[in-house]
Amino acid sequence: MEVNFRSTCMIASALDLIGDKWSILIVRDMLLHKKTAFKEFVASDEGVATNLLSSRLKFLESIEVITKNKLTTNKKENIYLLTEKGIDLTPVIMELVIWSDVYVRAYHTEMNTSETVNMDKEIVIKNAQKQYREFAAQFKNQIVC
Amino acid sequence: MEVNFRSTCMIASALDLIGDKWSILIVRDMLLHKKTAFKEFVASDEGVATNLLSSRLKFLESIEVITKNKLTTNKKENIYLLTEKGIDLTPVIMELVIWSDVYVRAYHTEMNTSETVNMDKEIVIKNAQKQYREFAAQFKNQIVC
Repeated sequence: MEVNFRSTCMIASALDLIGDKWSILIVRDMLLHKKTAFKEFVASDEGVATNLLSSRLKFLESIEVITKNKLTTNKKENIYLLTEKGIDLTPVIMELVIWSDVYVRAYHTEMNTSETVNMDKEIVIKNAQKQYREFAAQFKNQIVC
Repeated sequence: MEVNFRSTCMIASALDLIGDKWSILIVRDMLLHKKTAFKEFVASDEGVATNLLSSRLKFLESIEVITKNKLTTNKKENIYLLTEKGIDLTPVIMELVIWSDVYVRAYHTEMNTSETVNMDKEIVIKNAQKQYREFAAQFKNQIVC
């Protein structure tokens, strides 16, 4: 994993790792939509190009935001899971949702709504993280070492 | 302002507006470093190319994250100020700082530290926003309509 950090700034450095247009959406697909397979990420509405997706998955794996695994029940297909580092991007995603709800809607009238914007932020974050951990735990004993 | 939103997702749509590598750093420079001038943004450590900066400033102005103004005391230079929409990106920036502190440092040993990561998040955010509003208010009577 070779990253050319632009500066010593904490904000810039975080963006140097996950500040492209796709990384956060891959984390979203895993965290909120429980997607685990390459073909499921490809099927997302944004239509990521497969070469770009492939390279972002490799990079996210290299910086330990996700893990790539094979299951004993299906040795052909990779399944991707978020690490705690990935799960801890939930607050960033939540803040984007809140900002989007207030400020992006004016430019994008067909944009989705989310009931979570009116709920207690910390609870929404904790619940999303807990649900994902429970989801990922089911694969634990099936992962090929 | 013409944006091709990739989907109806609130997260993707927010990233379609401010999810490039520079927008959040421009907001950071304004919010935390009280920068207002083009040449001050250029001088930031990340070394943004002037054509890229120019195009991002224009775009951020078009989506009302910033305003471009001239002062009665200096009609030559533009001064850029954050709108409330821009100031409301503070929580996103704060969450990036927190994530960075825990997870990016391992890859980037020279990265800065910030005492804010150990403080109450909501207070840090409110203070940063308040300080910026006070800073921006000083220009209010000098802005050429």
